[in-house]
Amino acid sequence: MKNTESILTQNINFLHYIFLYRSYKSNICEQTNAQVLYDFPAEPGNNELSVQEGEILTVTNQNVGGGWVEARNSRGNVGLVPEDYIEVKNTLIICFVFDFTSLYRGVNGNEAWTATTWSNNNPADNWNSAEQEPAGNSGSVYSFDEEWDDDSDDGKSTVGYGGSQMEEGGTMQRGGGHSTMKISLNKFPGFSKTPNPEVYLLTKSIAKGNDKLPIYAGEVGPVWLYPQIQLDCVVADPKKGSKMYGLKSYIEYQITPNTTNRPVNHRYKHFDWLYERLVEKFACALPIPCLPDKQVTGRFEEEFIQMRMERLQGWMSRMCRHPVISNSDVFQLFLNYRDEKEWKLGKRKTEKDEIVGVKIFSTIDPELPELDPGQVEQKYEMYSQFTRSMDNSVKELLAVGHLHWKRCTGPLQKEYRQIGKAFQNLSSVFNTSAYPRESTLTEALSATGKTYEEIAELVAGQPKKDLHFLMETNNEYKGLLGCFPDTVAVHKAAIDKVKEADHLVTMNKVSQQDKHIMEKNLSTMSYALQAEMNHFHSNRIYDYNRLMQFYLEEQVKFYETIAEKLKKALGQYTTI
Amino acid sequence: MKNTESILTQNINFLHYIFLYRSYKSNICEQTNAQVLYDFPAEPGNNELSVQEGEILTVTNQNVGGGWVEARNSRGNVGLVPEDYIEVKNTLIICFVFDFTSLYRGVNGNEAWTATTWSNNNPADNWNSAEQEPAGNSGSVYSFDEEWDDDSDDGKSTVGYGGSQMEEGGTMQRGGGHSTMKISLNKFPGFSKTPNPEVYLLTKSIAKGNDKLPIYAGEVGPVWLYPQIQLDCVVADPKKGSKMYGLKSYIEYQITPNTTNRPVNHRYKHFDWLYERLVEKFACALPIPCLPDKQVTGRFEEEFIQMRMERLQGWMSRMCRHPVISNSDVFQLFLNYRDEKEWKLGKRKTEKDEIVGVKIFSTIDPELPELDPGQVEQKYEMYSQFTRSMDNSVKELLAVGHLHWKRCTGPLQKEYRQIGKAFQNLSSVFNTSAYPRESTLTEALSATGKTYEEIAELVAGQPKKDLHFLMETNNEYKGLLGCFPDTVAVHKAAIDKVKEADHLVTMNKVSQQDKHIMEKNLSTMSYALQAEMNHFHSNRIYDYNRLMQFYLEEQVKFYETIAEKLKKALGQYTTI
Repeated sequence: MKNTESILTQNINFLHYIFLYRSYKSNICEQTNAQVLYDFPAEPGNNELSVQEGEILTVTNQNVGGGWVEARNSRGNVGLVPEDYIEVKNTLIICFVFDFTSLYRGVNGNEAWTATTWSNNNPADNWNSAEQEPAGNSGSVYSFDEEWDDDSDDGKSTVGYGGSQMEEGGTMQRGGGHSTMKISLNKFPGFSKTPNPEVYLLTKSIAKGNDKLPIYAGEVGPVWLYPQIQLDCVVADPKKGSKMYGLKSYIEYQITPNTTNRPVNHRYKHFDWLYERLVEKFACALPIPCLPDKQVTGRFEEEFIQMRMERLQGWMSRMCRHPVISNSDVFQLFLNYRDEKEWKLGKRKTEKDEIVGVKIFSTIDPELPELDPGQVEQKYEMYSQFTRSMDNSVKELLAVGHLHWKRCTGPLQKEYRQIGKAFQNLSSVFNTSAYPRESTLTEALSATGKTYEEIAELVAGQPKKDLHFLMETNNEYKGLLGCFPDTVAVHKAAIDKVKEADHLVTMNKVSQQDKHIMEKNLSTMSYALQAEMNHFHSNRIYDYNRLMQFYLEEQVKFYETIAEKLKKALGQYTTI
Repeated sequence: MKNTESILTQNINFLHYIFLYRSYKSNICEQTNAQVLYDFPAEPGNNELSVQEGEILTVTNQNVGGGWVEARNSRGNVGLVPEDYIEVKNTLIICFVFDFTSLYRGVNGNEAWTATTWSNNNPADNWNSAEQEPAGNSGSVYSFDEEWDDDSDDGKSTVGYGGSQMEEGGTMQRGGGHSTMKISLNKFPGFSKTPNPEVYLLTKSIAKGNDKLPIYAGEVGPVWLYPQIQLDCVVADPKKGSKMYGLKSYIEYQITPNTTNRPVNHRYKHFDWLYERLVEKFACALPIPCLPDKQVTGRFEEEFIQMRMERLQGWMSRMCRHPVISNSDVFQLFLNYRDEKEWKLGKRKTEKDEIVGVKIFSTIDPELPELDPGQVEQKYEMYSQFTRSMDNSVKELLAVGHLHWKRCTGPLQKEYRQIGKAFQNLSSVFNTSAYPRESTLTEALSATGKTYEEIAELVAGQPKKDLHFLMETNNEYKGLLGCFPDTVAVHKAAIDKVKEADHLVTMNKVSQQDKHIMEKNLSTMSYALQAEMNHFHSNRIYDYNRLMQFYLEEQVKFYETIAEKLKKALGQYTTI
């Protein structure tokens, strides 16, 4: 910390040179440490670094892309390590959050600066895309990402990232990690890590009419009200657009909901705006999975666009499947706006929405018997435990999937090619024997060699066919599971408040009536969490069923194809 | 060389301490260099050394066993490298060849010593057995191998290894390399690398009766006379025997020929005696593949005994299939002796046989038109080229097979286990959800996990099922091909002699008649080589057909089994 402060003091003059912002920050980022989660044996010749579980690394470059980070081990060896294999710790990140006014007024010293510790999970798990956003870049007010600086009528008012205040971890978590969600804080008095549920706990009134979010007793327990027709949409047809006389380019996607069948166009930053609104409004009650990662370079490359589209589709489908989100005004606006005017008006209205943060609970109406705080706490513990365990399990699967992918496209492909080549070479040699009874064997051997070369390509191509979907879905779940701690923490804080109220009642500082309101509201919050968990479980079972069936079907096809090919090769030999 | 001589002088006194022989020699062996033939990426945690094609290593320990050698690279890193991946070069080996008489007479100085360059091929390709004989140990007169020092009535007269003379490379090649054969020299006047064919080239008489080895014009060209009934034998039932009141133990194998169906017993050293006799008698005309390697430690271990038996069976079957060898007196004696007396008498008679070395050609009677020296040379070049190419190709296949074997039993098995474990862990986590509709998925996931664990074991067990036979056969061929250069060199020397004779005729130093005899005999030699090559080709086609069919059948079964297992696992999922 001392060291950082002295760096800061030395560099204070650089503040005026805002264009140095990036390079300066990337220097500070180099002080990132990471702990190794799983053994990773380096493949020779790939600039990789062998690491062992528990080892501490110094991250030397988080921005290499493709799901890799460059790191140095304690022996000074530098190499690439898959980012899923490490947990980044103690990053010293300098958040430059101030506004132009203060810049031209002269910088108000240390207030604008802070060194904050980022004890985040894995960095962005953009596990096999090309490149990615430098950690911590997104969301800063004066970032130079094209996605952000070219359109002043939106984006800039981004709640949770605006203002001249720094936020602890907030800016980092969005840009650097897929797996956390930033619950909006700035609409509440005071700042703390978790939104203070007190605002809600003492609320007596319940929203009426359309705003009401009922919870029913379903077969599996408390459930949200599910619509008769399941909303869905198709994200397709990415088109390059431009503005400012062609100076600024962007990609626009076409989104067609099954309800209207009328396509609307949105850029990535519109998705991001939607995400921000959903977080602001719902994140205390519903975990809102992050959008697929932003990317600065390679944004217009075919492969990247396809990958982003696929992931946006996944994200939108998940949102559509959620009964509360899909039915919300902001989500409906996003899917159904008729023209630019309706969109802009809708945006403005949405941004003025007051029912955000913990206030969302005041709209929830469980038509179910009140739970006592003990039951609430028990559920809380159970969900907390489950999501944590599943998060670990999903990460384990991703890690082993990543390793398997690499082995299939790397050494295994190479080895089958070598086997194929060895048989073909033997065939060529045999062909030179001038022995009259040679041809059947040499032809068969050569066909066997070609078969193994084909197998090499099958092996290398297989992960894209089956593992890809398994990885994508698990990655989505990793993102979703990373949001639970934030959501569940709101509930934990509410439980603590109610416990505190118990104590305050005995000291006559809180009335018995108020305490009862708090308990009733805690019960409502718990029902919301239960309904959300049941929604999560039901989706999870559907998703993993589908995922495993797809994976196994493809695996069966793969092995059967190989067996078929080998059988055909075998048929060419004759027993003499 | 200077350096070696000074080491020799310094250590000359050690000669009297014959028991220091081994350790002394092993010191000298450490100066072995090796060139890397194929890239080998080390597996982490296995003490392996990554090496690249063309790299020069210093072999630090050739005796680690299991098909590995310990080596040091130019950067000073030491680790294990598969011996099939390297070619040992410039080994400084000190051959201690003298007899007890000379030892007690006082050592006759430098005559008994020599530093010889061993430019052999790969060391013993005992590619997946347990341990192996220190290179250069076998065949020395005063070796302490139990196989050799406990039975004075045989072995000690081993031709090609006895006497107080050093032999260039000879003793090394037998012990250290599967792939070369030592053609007997000591029954001919003068010493050279290749037996001098002059002795034969000027011979006029041709052997008669039983000793005659006819060559016929077969469909494929000149062929040996094949017997009506193909001789074969079964090597089985290894039993531990002992002598000297239990002080010396040995393993005795039972060999049952299909002709008599009467089993005879032989120890490894009897096989070795047979091998020596066959080399002595036939190696100028027929390549005699080496016996499977001798081994000092672990000789009585189940696995080693089985492996040796399997390889002795392979060697014996190959000898039985050879029309000339199988019909020879020595081979018949080995298979058919009735009692100890017959065996000993037969041995004594065999050892007195005068028709050995190049003289064998005098017994060959090709009933075919004489070839001119030009034709002979052409054939010689073709065979030489073919066997060299095939040798390379076989080595390539062995190298890639070795790599594949290691990957299957190492990282691939581990990875499938990890995949299995990841699915099972996910199942366990899902099981804790307390969600009522969980069980079908958790059970299916757990079954999938177990399936991948089973696949891990299938993958690891597969090489023993299919690759083993492929490797064993190719290894046998590697040994056989390694014998061709020696055999073919005799022919090359004969061609040179005939060319020389041409010149000597013009100088009237050789009569026209003698020259003609030489050309006729050269033609006979060439027919012998052609018959032998045709025998080799016919066996090769049979062997590789069988080998490939077996390999592919097992591979098909393997992939089908996996597909079946995965199909079963898939069946447990339900589409909700």
